[in-house]
Amino acid sequence: MDHIKNYQAQFLEYLEGYVKERQPRNLYDPVNYILKLGGKRLRPVLTLLACDCFDGDYNKAFDAALSVEVFHNFSLVHDDIMDDAPLRRGKETVHEKWDINTGILSGDVMLIMAYQLFENYKPEVFQGLAKLFSKTATEVCEGQQYDVDFETRNDVSIDEYLKMIEYKTAVLVGAAMKMGAIVAETSEENQNAIYDFGRYLGIAFQLQDDYLDAFGNPETFGKQVGGDIIENKKTYLYLKAMEFASDEDKQKLLDYFSTQPEDTSHKVEDVKQIFTASGAKNATKEAVEQYTEKAFSLLRMLNVSDDKKQLLKQFGLALMTRNV
Amino acid sequence: MDHIKNYQAQFLEYLEGYVKERQPRNLYDPVNYILKLGGKRLRPVLTLLACDCFDGDYNKAFDAALSVEVFHNFSLVHDDIMDDAPLRRGKETVHEKWDINTGILSGDVMLIMAYQLFENYKPEVFQGLAKLFSKTATEVCEGQQYDVDFETRNDVSIDEYLKMIEYKTAVLVGAAMKMGAIVAETSEENQNAIYDFGRYLGIAFQLQDDYLDAFGNPETFGKQVGGDIIENKKTYLYLKAMEFASDEDKQKLLDYFSTQPEDTSHKVEDVKQIFTASGAKNATKEAVEQYTEKAFSLLRMLNVSDDKKQLLKQFGLALMTRNV
Repeated sequence: MDHIKNYQAQFLEYLEGYVKERQPRNLYDPVNYILKLGGKRLRPVLTLLACDCFDGDYNKAFDAALSVEVFHNFSLVHDDIMDDAPLRRGKETVHEKWDINTGILSGDVMLIMAYQLFENYKPEVFQGLAKLFSKTATEVCEGQQYDVDFETRNDVSIDEYLKMIEYKTAVLVGAAMKMGAIVAETSEENQNAIYDFGRYLGIAFQLQDDYLDAFGNPETFGKQVGGDIIENKKTYLYLKAMEFASDEDKQKLLDYFSTQPEDTSHKVEDVKQIFTASGAKNATKEAVEQYTEKAFSLLRMLNVSDDKKQLLKQFGLALMTRNV
Repeated sequence: MDHIKNYQAQFLEYLEGYVKERQPRNLYDPVNYILKLGGKRLRPVLTLLACDCFDGDYNKAFDAALSVEVFHNFSLVHDDIMDDAPLRRGKETVHEKWDINTGILSGDVMLIMAYQLFENYKPEVFQGLAKLFSKTATEVCEGQQYDVDFETRNDVSIDEYLKMIEYKTAVLVGAAMKMGAIVAETSEENQNAIYDFGRYLGIAFQLQDDYLDAFGNPETFGKQVGGDIIENKKTYLYLKAMEFASDEDKQKLLDYFSTQPEDTSHKVEDVKQIFTASGAKNATKEAVEQYTEKAFSLLRMLNVSDDKKQLLKQFGLALMTRNV
């Protein structure tokens, strides 16, 4: 995965040149703070990778890649306000370090900055990028709203849940790749295939996240294992368990997911037991595999060399084994 | 001003067709609510008027006009959260009727919707509109931040204040008109002249607003006369008084603007007295006239028929006499 490391390093250098002190400081300092907070920069790397795979000059894709990263960080700033989150990547969130008003306004200007990063492309490419960006950004907002709505609903279907994670997370992965394809000016077929590749991979990744949150290795999974269960999050595991479990276990789940006990270890173990016994654990594992397979099957449709396909597949595998 | 009434009516009809029930309801209902809350729709009317004046087909300018109105309403939703305002146009603000999180997310999607309204224009026009929009929206955010910063500063200069109102209010008036010019595909000289016409008119209007807030007729001025003084707002009147007044009166102003007395009538009368005696009242009146004259002088540079110039001047006069 030397390719990926190379993209990451070059992207960070480009980001470094973009992050500059600007007036008014109270508007732009928070922007620079969140942009430099770290993260794996996977989305912008995907833009560079996709551009490269379609024989474009990836040096021309840095602005598009940066736009994706700025948008992603915009959504983090506003989501953290909505979730009342104190920490992001182990550091204070923007609204915690400054205040909520600052978080709102700095987030707003980031959304505009993301569009401005397309301005150096010629009109046709500009319009292609901006249209895709707007569609994606709209879906991310809709996904966030569905996520909020689902918190207070007890009748969320699997299809609704899949649409929510697709919108909230996966479309941006697809869009990041398609932007690289647009900059490379490849065919519309290729553009759409790489979009779906990223979108399916994004869904697979998010479902795997649901899975690992309950059944992952505490030493390698980045977050607290059992966190979703403690927070009563109705993930794919939960929805599948409510579909498959015995009436008794369903009632147990409903009870567990309407309380917040002080000692959570018993709850976590009990719920995981139901997830396993009901078949929800296996069903989730299978769904991850199905969406990963769907993504890889799209690679066959791409009109690019086998070398490039291999590169994309390698990246997909690295992502799904969390080695990137 | 039959022209204006005609544009207003047609714009409202177009808006009516745009406001549709969409899913998720909790995201889009607030968007529709604020868009239908009323207002004079002056900014979109300016887009239509400008397009018409440059011999464009103003029927093609509705999407650009609507974009300006959607953006303006986005900024109202987020500003009302930041100002903790309960009412907007006599009705509940979005965050009051729903909640703050809804206000943030619905505002976000409106900003994206504003960009999407450019999508039906051809690539060159699209890029021209989107670039102008991004520049303007950035300045509006910066103006809002300066306004917030100024609340806690005691050393704001007249130049800084003028830049703040230019960014926060006037550039959008200029941009609204320039968008009409872009859709009409008139020369760059015309585009820039109409932008400056709108921008100077916007500054004049805002300075007049400062003036009328203290010295307007309570029966015709839409807001509470004396409101700025009660809220300790450092308007043009205040800054000029701090420049011109005797040391004694300056100290009085400083004292008045650091307290919030329960009975405000005495404070309002006293401060108005200082505004008048110091010459700040007259200076503000003169500034309004100067910026209005600057705006009108730009009309002479426009390469359009005298009829059209007359139309623009009429609109400017109607705006400044608050008859529109």
